[in-house]
Amino acid sequence: MYLCDMAKILIINGPNLNLLGTRETDTYGVMSLQEIENQCVKNFPKHHISFFQSNIEGELIDAIQRTNAEAVVLNAGGYTHTSVAIRDAIAASELPVVEVHISNISARESFRHTSLLSPVCAGVIFGFGVDGYGLAIVASLRLLGYDF
Amino acid sequence: MYLCDMAKILIINGPNLNLLGTRETDTYGVMSLQEIENQCVKNFPKHHISFFQSNIEGELIDAIQRTNAEAVVLNAGGYTHTSVAIRDAIAASELPVVEVHISNISARESFRHTSLLSPVCAGVIFGFGVDGYGLAIVASLRLLGYDF
Amino acid sequence: MYLCDMAKILIINGPNLNLLGTRETDTYGVMSLQEIENQCVKNFPKHHISFFQSNIEGELIDAIQRTNAEAVVLNAGGYTHTSVAIRDAIAASELPVVEVHISNISARESFRHTSLLSPVCAGVIFGFGVDGYGLAIVASLRLLGYDF
Amino acid sequence: MYLCDMAKILIINGPNLNLLGTRETDTYGVMSLQEIENQCVKNFPKHHISFFQSNIEGELIDAIQRTNAEAVVLNAGGYTHTSVAIRDAIAASELPVVEVHISNISARESFRHTSLLSPVCAGVIFGFGVDGYGLAIVASLRLLGYDF
Amino acid sequence: MYLCDMAKILIINGPNLNLLGTRETDTYGVMSLQEIENQCVKNFPKHHISFFQSNIEGELIDAIQRTNAEAVVLNAGGYTHTSVAIRDAIAASELPVVEVHISNISARESFRHTSLLSPVCAGVIFGFGVDGYGLAIVASLRLLGYDF
Amino acid sequence: MYLCDMAKILIINGPNLNLLGTRETDTYGVMSLQEIENQCVKNFPKHHISFFQSNIEGELIDAIQRTNAEAVVLNAGGYTHTSVAIRDAIAASELPVVEVHISNISARESFRHTSLLSPVCAGVIFGFGVDGYGLAIVASLRLLGYDF
Amino acid sequence: MYLCDMAKILIINGPNLNLLGTRETDTYGVMSLQEIENQCVKNFPKHHISFFQSNIEGELIDAIQRTNAEAVVLNAGGYTHTSVAIRDAIAASELPVVEVHISNISARESFRHTSLLSPVCAGVIFGFGVDGYGLAIVASLRLLGYDF
Amino acid sequence: MYLCDMAKILIINGPNLNLLGTRETDTYGVMSLQEIENQCVKNFPKHHISFFQSNIEGELIDAIQRTNAEAVVLNAGGYTHTSVAIRDAIAASELPVVEVHISNISARESFRHTSLLSPVCAGVIFGFGVDGYGLAIVASLRLLGYDF
Amino acid sequence: MYLCDMAKILIINGPNLNLLGTRETDTYGVMSLQEIENQCVKNFPKHHISFFQSNIEGELIDAIQRTNAEAVVLNAGGYTHTSVAIRDAIAASELPVVEVHISNISARESFRHTSLLSPVCAGVIFGFGVDGYGLAIVASLRLLGYDF
Amino acid sequence: MYLCDMAKILIINGPNLNLLGTRETDTYGVMSLQEIENQCVKNFPKHHISFFQSNIEGELIDAIQRTNAEAVVLNAGGYTHTSVAIRDAIAASELPVVEVHISNISARESFRHTSLLSPVCAGVIFGFGVDGYGLAIVASLRLLGYDF
Amino acid sequence: MYLCDMAKILIINGPNLNLLGTRETDTYGVMSLQEIENQCVKNFPKHHISFFQSNIEGELIDAIQRTNAEAVVLNAGGYTHTSVAIRDAIAASELPVVEVHISNISARESFRHTSLLSPVCAGVIFGFGVDGYGLAIVASLRLLGYDF
Amino acid sequence: MYLCDMAKILIINGPNLNLLGTRETDTYGVMSLQEIENQCVKNFPKHHISFFQSNIEGELIDAIQRTNAEAVVLNAGGYTHTSVAIRDAIAASELPVVEVHISNISARESFRHTSLLSPVCAGVIFGFGVDGYGLAIVASLRLLGYDF
Repeated sequence: MYLCDMAKILIINGPNLNLLGTRETDTYGVMSLQEIENQCVKNFPKHHISFFQSNIEGELIDAIQRTNAEAVVLNAGGYTHTSVAIRDAIAASELPVVEVHISNISARESFRHTSLLSPVCAGVIFGFGVDGYGLAIVASLRLLGYDF
Repeated sequence: MYLCDMAKILIINGPNLNLLGTRETDTYGVMSLQEIENQCVKNFPKHHISFFQSNIEGELIDAIQRTNAEAVVLNAGGYTHTSVAIRDAIAASELPVVEVHISNISARESFRHTSLLSPVCAGVIFGFGVDGYGLAIVASLRLLGYDF
Repeated sequence: MYLCDMAKILIINGPNLNLLGTRETDTYGVMSLQEIENQCVKNFPKHHISFFQSNIEGELIDAIQRTNAEAVVLNAGGYTHTSVAIRDAIAASELPVVEVHISNISARESFRHTSLLSPVCAGVIFGFGVDGYGLAIVASLRLLGYDF
Repeated sequence: MYLCDMAKILIINGPNLNLLGTRETDTYGVMSLQEIENQCVKNFPKHHISFFQSNIEGELIDAIQRTNAEAVVLNAGGYTHTSVAIRDAIAASELPVVEVHISNISARESFRHTSLLSPVCAGVIFGFGVDGYGLAIVASLRLLGYDF
Repeated sequence: MYLCDMAKILIINGPNLNLLGTRETDTYGVMSLQEIENQCVKNFPKHHISFFQSNIEGELIDAIQRTNAEAVVLNAGGYTHTSVAIRDAIAASELPVVEVHISNISARESFRHTSLLSPVCAGVIFGFGVDGYGLAIVASLRLLGYDF
Repeated sequence: MYLCDMAKILIINGPNLNLLGTRETDTYGVMSLQEIENQCVKNFPKHHISFFQSNIEGELIDAIQRTNAEAVVLNAGGYTHTSVAIRDAIAASELPVVEVHISNISARESFRHTSLLSPVCAGVIFGFGVDGYGLAIVASLRLLGYDF
Repeated sequence: MYLCDMAKILIINGPNLNLLGTRETDTYGVMSLQEIENQCVKNFPKHHISFFQSNIEGELIDAIQRTNAEAVVLNAGGYTHTSVAIRDAIAASELPVVEVHISNISARESFRHTSLLSPVCAGVIFGFGVDGYGLAIVASLRLLGYDF
Repeated sequence: MYLCDMAKILIINGPNLNLLGTRETDTYGVMSLQEIENQCVKNFPKHHISFFQSNIEGELIDAIQRTNAEAVVLNAGGYTHTSVAIRDAIAASELPVVEVHISNISARESFRHTSLLSPVCAGVIFGFGVDGYGLAIVASLRLLGYDF
Repeated sequence: MYLCDMAKILIINGPNLNLLGTRETDTYGVMSLQEIENQCVKNFPKHHISFFQSNIEGELIDAIQRTNAEAVVLNAGGYTHTSVAIRDAIAASELPVVEVHISNISARESFRHTSLLSPVCAGVIFGFGVDGYGLAIVASLRLLGYDF
Repeated sequence: MYLCDMAKILIINGPNLNLLGTRETDTYGVMSLQEIENQCVKNFPKHHISFFQSNIEGELIDAIQRTNAEAVVLNAGGYTHTSVAIRDAIAASELPVVEVHISNISARESFRHTSLLSPVCAGVIFGFGVDGYGLAIVASLRLLGYDF
Repeated sequence: MYLCDMAKILIINGPNLNLLGTRETDTYGVMSLQEIENQCVKNFPKHHISFFQSNIEGELIDAIQRTNAEAVVLNAGGYTHTSVAIRDAIAASELPVVEVHISNISARESFRHTSLLSPVCAGVIFGFGVDGYGLAIVASLRLLGYDF
Repeated sequence: MYLCDMAKILIINGPNLNLLGTRETDTYGVMSLQEIENQCVKNFPKHHISFFQSNIEGELIDAIQRTNAEAVVLNAGGYTHTSVAIRDAIAASELPVVEVHISNISARESFRHTSLLSPVCAGVIFGFGVDGYGLAIVASLRLLGYDF
């Protein structure tokens, strides 16, 4: 189902996502970030999937600026709704960025309904739990021209 | 990658999506709705994928009420942003519904930024062109418990 | 308590109300639409009570335009909050229309707090469950000049 | 149509409703508050209907707090749209409260379209003139379990 | 300049205006409410000027309902911006009501910019300090048909 | 004044416009829809003017999608203000669409001041009563290159 | 098609419309204001069409106040969206005023979507380029009772 | 009642007020501007009252800048609600300015409820018809220290 | 920890707070107002703590105006969000006022998020249950210069 | 007054609070952050009070995630009004968090009136200057079950 | 630092700026408009700097339309925030326009925060007092290709 | 044109400005940040110009707090529109801060139209490309008292 040629994809996770699997498991599920990352690697063995997490807004910008990946999967956490600076970093980058959220943000507090990042991302996936990461990788591969 | 057991999934397309591939191809791509449907059937041969399209809001509600599918993939087109009635139909149904849009609706006119349907859907996928349908089927299968 | 003379009253139910009693029974109760209609007929034996239900906005307009009833009891469901067209149909009709809702719409999502229909209806009744239909018939009879 | 067992219902009227029948009769009709109260007593002879009217917000709160009635019919007049304090009194009480308005408030000035009280009342009836009080008593009896 | 015939005018002052002259004298001046009332009597000797002050919203409503004056000068203080009930009392009364404020309310906090009362008053005068009462009496006399 | 060559123009009327001439004649005049259509045919004898009316939103979309006319004159009635789906149909069509309203919608309720359709129509004409249809046909002919 | 009797119609153009045909020709076309005026005279030879243009808001008001025309065609340019004073002049005049705009103002910046003038004009025409003037003259003649 | 010493007061009237007494007499009364001015001179014989009227915003600013009067009574008509420039002229002047309106602007269209000028005026008087000018002169004299 | 010198502090409780401990105990706890008052007296034996409760807005204003206490602890209940008049009473008083709420008002309905009183109070404490009263007394003592 | 058992409380200060006592002393007082921290330690000798300050949003999140304290006192400075990410960190933590501000934020610029953090904190204290920290520690101890 | 070749620059000042140096000197400084103009001439001797001031909106439009300057420096005063007509004049002109304000308009009343002109100007400079004019001339020269 | 005495000025650039000259050159030009900095040094040889760039919000705050420069030129990038914390740092600093943006932010997305920083900066310059830095240095020198 996937090409032999290796794609380089960077998965960036923002603030508080380092806590996945340990807290608020009703909302975010029981898998830890490490387990999610391991699963991504396992599910897409032909591709190079790398990972970055930080609670600091500017370090997420740094990561976007400096990556040599061909596509980015981004869960910017709480910065999704407040960061013009990350938006600018995405717009400045020449990479397709896939925005992902674990929960259905449209069904939560109203300030989570608006993403400053979506208009400059290639596409958006949310509400599917940690499966969203896998779906986002598939979407990224498609954007890079790989077969479904 | 997918279970042997067949899942029943209904793909519902709303107003103007019958025109896919013939008009506004810059925004919506060159594949016709028939070709998309054919591709869905071909890509998920182990599952039963059925299709419905109507320009009439109430017929979309009828389709949601009457389906015997286990999950629904819904592109409600322009009704996405205005239909409390479709929202109520989704909420009343006991099926997981995956909302999908071909274009990145967050990057278009402001009245397209708000979906009345999202809060009662399981999850949302938009911006990936017609690939969104395939991603939504995968997401639906995962929601039904099939392996990725 | 009611006049001997028979009044003709049409009960119109909009989208998803055909599901009454089968889904979301916490919000809408366990009586089916058929049972509600039967009860209305039984409780007001001296009057002619007729019924119409559709999920299609335009068919509700058709029903309002074409009825030969003397008064209308209308539960427009989700169209209550979005339909200028039904509002115009009510305003164009020369019948008293009583708006009714099963649930207390003011205690639900904010988009349900505003009814486009109320300003052109004679009066509004909501929050009393399926008893609302009976109350609305009584109100209609009073508007037509029948004793309480 | 009504049970033999007596229900205790308190009808509370707020500011300016003591003027009913004497002023603005185009909007509010020609019956005085005393006549309305007499009619309520006459129409529901098997039940104990009591009455309270005050122009003072806090006295309405006192009445709600201190009543030994089983249900309250409340026309809070102008306080409907401004009183968080009456809302809190209703929420704190353990009684079903039926909100009633004589005129169709949705067809008047925009500040009358929002009721702070509705979300904590059992249900709402408006637009039927002074008949609203009778309908509200019927609704209250139904809420208390009496037959229609 | 004024007619020999006596007019009956009631000056109503709302919450905190009993403190005039003792507090916040920068905003409200150094004259006490008693001194203002005395001055009104002295300046309009041919007319019957009476006075009422209360901090209680409902008592202001009572005063408007019960007065036998021919015109009312009303400084409703903080209730100006929040009281639908006083507005309704003014609308129900058949008297010309002149709204007056000591300070220039349009130059203060934004919640003071909107008066719920103005649309149902005959006219409004504000910003002229305690002179506003005298101007309002003159305006009332003119509204009653007395010469300037 | 008009070319010999025949232009094909479709006049689409939306919800409640089938009632023209029979109700609310103060606002909409006394001509029936049939009479208006007859007059259009009579006034533009060299051109092919066809007609469609429906109360159902989706059928209006169908009409726009399927017409072989060269231009459309559209009075979408109440759907003007709520229908993203009709807007999308207009945008998808390759025809010039002239929006027309019989009444001056800017002088009516505020929800009628905004048309979702206008931005994707060629132009807009409103306030001239049923003459608006004739003006819209002239405008359509001009858009198609016919002389004035 | 037009009556023999001569109607007097004044065409008023507001700020920057003296530049027509020389600048921003993509939006406003290549005809100069003089050419438009000549064409109006030529196309309606039986009627007296006069013209006025000014960049000064108050001079447009003067023109409306002083004209002895029977109807006015008004393109108020940028003042359309900001001038209560021109609105008041239209309302005070006893003439039918037809508002016209060359471009489709609903498809431009949001501050151009609201016209302060439309509610007091007889009707509105926009989006048809300089043809709008001719259509507006036809509309004016119809309002004055001339045949189409 | 007034001082012997002469005060110089300038009465400025803005757009469309030159039409007073000739049009919309229901709203603005039957006195012409000339008659109002004559009456002001007659009623305040000990003071020098001068007058200015213009439909042009900038000429009103000029008048405020250049006057040698000690106080200004200003009815800015439609510019009241839109002119930051007149506001700035008032703020820059060192004169007390009394804002006056003939009608009760709070009871008219919502765009008339906000005055950009009020916050920089000394005080405001509206709703008393043409008597407002006399009241404003009295208020001006009081602001200048003359006895009531 | 507290000074020997006695401070006089008045604890004012507004509408519905007389019900504390008897209703909605999930939100407000099980202590009655009397018990809270007793505890305040016991915990601050060196100071004079007095108490007032009323459901009537104007009586709360009276209490603020007439107290001879040196500081006020105020829980205005539902009036917190609607009373300009109480705000004015606080601003007029020369006492430090500490606003207190039992529940976390920022986590409840949106109309409870804004306090009209806070800007004129010395400080605000909310969310700590009935402990808020004790904290507010400590804060008041500190504002009066007593040691912590 | 406090328990012998030691509680662990972390005081977190956000951006610019390292400048306390050196700048804007009119608003924030003359005590330095070090002095405040010393005072906290001195006033609560039986408990373990620790401290953290950073200008970097993500480091405040790190501090909340990593602390082993039993309660947190948080003054997030300017991030209070903009940080969904800190809000998420508080919600994810299982600790009671007391929000504190030195100044009365409700009396300052409007963007300071809304705290994104308050709804997920246990309670809020503001306006008491640096005393707020001591009050917050007392409140924290109460939340942890220590006596007042 | 500047080229030998002469540039033609027009400095346009709008309403009330003729008062510079004589009134509100705290906000606008003590230099008169004449002195500012003299200084501009003196500081840029190699270029041709001309000047225009008017209080009349339409005359500012005339000036923009008719100038033969290569660039415009524009301080539109109060019209900055209200004039769509001046905006249109700037957009229609083919000159670079530099918007300048003497005061920091973002720190004043909220209606001064939005400039209708900025989006169609080349750039904006404000807050530097009368130095703004010199900076704007330098910026204009740079836009015209002169060295800094 | 500049003083001999050396001024110390710090140029702070925020997120993504390290990418200048390499990406989105249509909007931001082709000069790299290094080249801009070199040019600033070269153009102002008599003054000490230093530089700081970071993508991290808190580090920008640190830079403002710790600088020993006499004035700051600040391009805060995306933080301009979201950072109360940087605003507080500017307000706390005793330095004049000149806000600069390369592009015309008023002509871009609406969320870029509001700067949280402008009200506490001395002045603002935007839209002149990288020339804005030079203009800002000149403005800073003027604010420090150096000749133009």
